[in-house]
Amino acid sequence: MSEIYFDNSSTTKVCREAADKVMELMTENYGNPSSLHSMGFRAERELTTARSTVAQQIGARDEEIFFTSGGTESNNLALFGAAHARRKRGNRIVSTEIEHHSVLNTLQELEREGFEVVLLKPDHTGNIPEEAIREAITPDTILVSMMCVNNEVGSILPIQVVPQAIQAAGAPALFHVDAVQAFGKLPLRPEKSKIDLMSMSAHKIHGPKGVGALYVRKGVHINPHSFGGGQESNIRPGTEALELIAGFAEAVRQLPETEQELARMRKLNHYCRERLSELDGAIIHSTEQGLPYILSFAAGKVRSETLLHYLSEHEIYVSSGSACSKGKPSHVLAAMNLPRDVIDSTLRLSFSRYNTEEEVDRFVEVLKQALSTLTKRA
Amino acid sequence: MSEIYFDNSSTTKVCREAADKVMELMTENYGNPSSLHSMGFRAERELTTARSTVAQQIGARDEEIFFTSGGTESNNLALFGAAHARRKRGNRIVSTEIEHHSVLNTLQELEREGFEVVLLKPDHTGNIPEEAIREAITPDTILVSMMCVNNEVGSILPIQVVPQAIQAAGAPALFHVDAVQAFGKLPLRPEKSKIDLMSMSAHKIHGPKGVGALYVRKGVHINPHSFGGGQESNIRPGTEALELIAGFAEAVRQLPETEQELARMRKLNHYCRERLSELDGAIIHSTEQGLPYILSFAAGKVRSETLLHYLSEHEIYVSSGSACSKGKPSHVLAAMNLPRDVIDSTLRLSFSRYNTEEEVDRFVEVLKQALSTLTKRA
Repeated sequence: MSEIYFDNSSTTKVCREAADKVMELMTENYGNPSSLHSMGFRAERELTTARSTVAQQIGARDEEIFFTSGGTESNNLALFGAAHARRKRGNRIVSTEIEHHSVLNTLQELEREGFEVVLLKPDHTGNIPEEAIREAITPDTILVSMMCVNNEVGSILPIQVVPQAIQAAGAPALFHVDAVQAFGKLPLRPEKSKIDLMSMSAHKIHGPKGVGALYVRKGVHINPHSFGGGQESNIRPGTEALELIAGFAEAVRQLPETEQELARMRKLNHYCRERLSELDGAIIHSTEQGLPYILSFAAGKVRSETLLHYLSEHEIYVSSGSACSKGKPSHVLAAMNLPRDVIDSTLRLSFSRYNTEEEVDRFVEVLKQALSTLTKRA
Repeated sequence: MSEIYFDNSSTTKVCREAADKVMELMTENYGNPSSLHSMGFRAERELTTARSTVAQQIGARDEEIFFTSGGTESNNLALFGAAHARRKRGNRIVSTEIEHHSVLNTLQELEREGFEVVLLKPDHTGNIPEEAIREAITPDTILVSMMCVNNEVGSILPIQVVPQAIQAAGAPALFHVDAVQAFGKLPLRPEKSKIDLMSMSAHKIHGPKGVGALYVRKGVHINPHSFGGGQESNIRPGTEALELIAGFAEAVRQLPETEQELARMRKLNHYCRERLSELDGAIIHSTEQGLPYILSFAAGKVRSETLLHYLSEHEIYVSSGSACSKGKPSHVLAAMNLPRDVIDSTLRLSFSRYNTEEEVDRFVEVLKQALSTLTKRA
C-alpha cells in the first residue's frame, strides 16, 4: 500500500524533471551568474531562461519577475517595499483577516511603524464581500493586499473588484496579490487584472522549497528590503540560488494546461464531496465556487490532531489548518465564525495532479474506521 | 583537457554527497517540517540534525543557529536586527571599507535611517590596523561588524581585538562577523571569540546556493527583518528550504579537517606564488599571513577582463574582483590605495580542496601565453 499525500497546499513532492534540473545545476553548470567567464555566462543564460519561463506563465515581461527565497519573502518584499515607497502619499493599508501569516505579521509590523491597517472580515464561506472592499478603500489608501486563493478553505477572493475600487476612490494605492496558492492552478494575468505586485512560490507546484518570485509591474517602484551585490536589479540581492530558480522554471514547464487540470480537479473534488457525504454529520467548509484543489471539512467530533495521527499511521497525509501555524487554532476558520468544536475537528485536503479517485476512496474508508474507532474510545 | 575552476570564492561545485542529499529531500522525504503527520516529523528530524551539524562545526548550541537564504540575508538580518534592537542605547556603528556589499549597502541604508556609520580604512595589505579599531569604538557604539576573511585578497582581519575594544570603551555594542569566506576554512568558535552574530553560507563550501545561516549567541536579542509563519523561532520565517538546509549540513560533514586542509592550502598557495614569480612584473596583493585559499595578484599590463576571457577559452575559470560586483572596479583594492592600472589588471584565484599543483602549472602556462599574446597585440 503506497502513501496518499493530500497535503499539497503545505508543500509538494518535487517532480522528477525539476529535481533533475536542480541536480544538473548543482554538479555540472554550477557557476555564479555574476562571474565574468564562460561558466558564469552559462549560469546567466539559465537564469534568463528561467525568468522567461516564469514570466510567460503569467503573461508578464521578463524584467517584471524578481526571484526570491519563497512566498514569505515575496510577501515581505511586496508589502514593506510598497508601503515604504508610498509613505508620503497616504497612510492606510487595506487587507483581509484571512491572509497568510507572512502578510498578516508583516502588516502588524507596518502598523507598529505607524501605518493604519484595516483588515476586512470574511463571510461564513471564507470569502470577502465585494461591498466591504469598496467601502474600505479611501483616498489615502496606499496599498491593498489580498490573496487570490485562501490556503485553508480554497475560497477565490474577488480580486477583480480591487482595481476599480482603487480608481473610484482616487487612491494612490498599489495592489498586491498573494498568489501562492493560485499560481499554476488558476489562469493569472496580472497585467490584464491590473495587479501591481504578485507573490508566487515554487514548492506548491512540485518545484523545490526555498524559491519563489515577485511580479513587479513595469513602471511600479518599490523599495528594496535587503541590500547587497546588486542582483535582481537591486530589488533582491544575493547570489542567485540558480539551481532552485532553474528547478522552479522546470516545475512551471511541467504544469498541465490550467483549464484542463482545473476540470480534472473539479471532478476529483466533487467525487470527494460525494464520498464525504456518506459520513454522519460531516460539515464541508469549502464552497463549490472555491479552488477545487482544496477541500476543508469537519468530519465529526474527533479532534483534528487525533485524526491526523490515525491517518498518518495508515500513510495518509492531510492537515488540520495550514502547516505554517503548526497546530495553533486556525485564524481563518475563526474569522469565518465557525464554532470552536467544528474548528477543532477540521481537516484540510489539498490535492495535486498526482492524486486519484482511488486515493479518495481509501482515504474515506480509513477516515470512517478512524471515526468509528476513536468515537467509541472517547 | 578538463576545466580548471579557481573561482571558489565566487561559488563552488556542490559535492556529490550534498547533491545526493538535496535530491533525497526533494523526491522522497519532501514533507513540510511544520506538518503534523509522520512526513512532517521526518522532515523536522532532518532539520534538527542539520542544525546540530552546523552548530557543532562552530562549537555552538543548536538553538543559536538560524537558517537563512544565504550570506546576504544573514548579513542583512544581523545588521538590521542588531541596530534596530539597540537603537535606544546608542547611535554609532563601526565597520570597515573592505566589507562585502551586503554589509556596506545595508550600512548605507542604516545611515539613511539616522545611524552614524564609521568605516575603517585598510592598510596597503588589505588589513585593518588594530589601533584604528580601538580608536573607533566609542561608548555610544551599538554594533561592530567586521568580516573574518576578506573575499578579494584573503586578508584575515584582527577580529580578536574587537571584544576587548568594546569592553574597554564600555560600549553597548553587539559584535557581528561576516564569516562567509572563513566558515569551513578557519577554526571558528564564536562563543570563545566573544562574537555575538556570525554569518555563514553553504555555496562557498561545496554546498548548494540559496542557503546560509546566522549564528545568534544565546541571550542576544535581535529584531527579525521579515515576518510570517513563525519558523526559525520567528527570527526568520518561511517554509524551511529543507533540501538546501540538509544539503548544507551534508557539505559541512564532508569538510576536511580544518588544520590539515589549511596546511595543504598553504602548500598550494606557496607553490602558486613561486610559479607566479616567474612572470615579469607580477605583483601579489595577498600577504602570506592571509587565508591561503585566496590569491590576488596583478600579472602585468593586460586588463583583467581580457585575461579572464582568454583563460575562459582555455576552460580556466578565475575572477577579477568578486563576482558580486560584476566587473565594477574593486572597492577593496581601491581602499588599499593600489594604482588604477594595477587594479584593472588584477586576477583573483580562489582554491578549494579539489584543486591541485598540476592545475596551477597549467594555469601559469596558459597565463604566460596570454600575457605574451595579448601584450604583443596591444
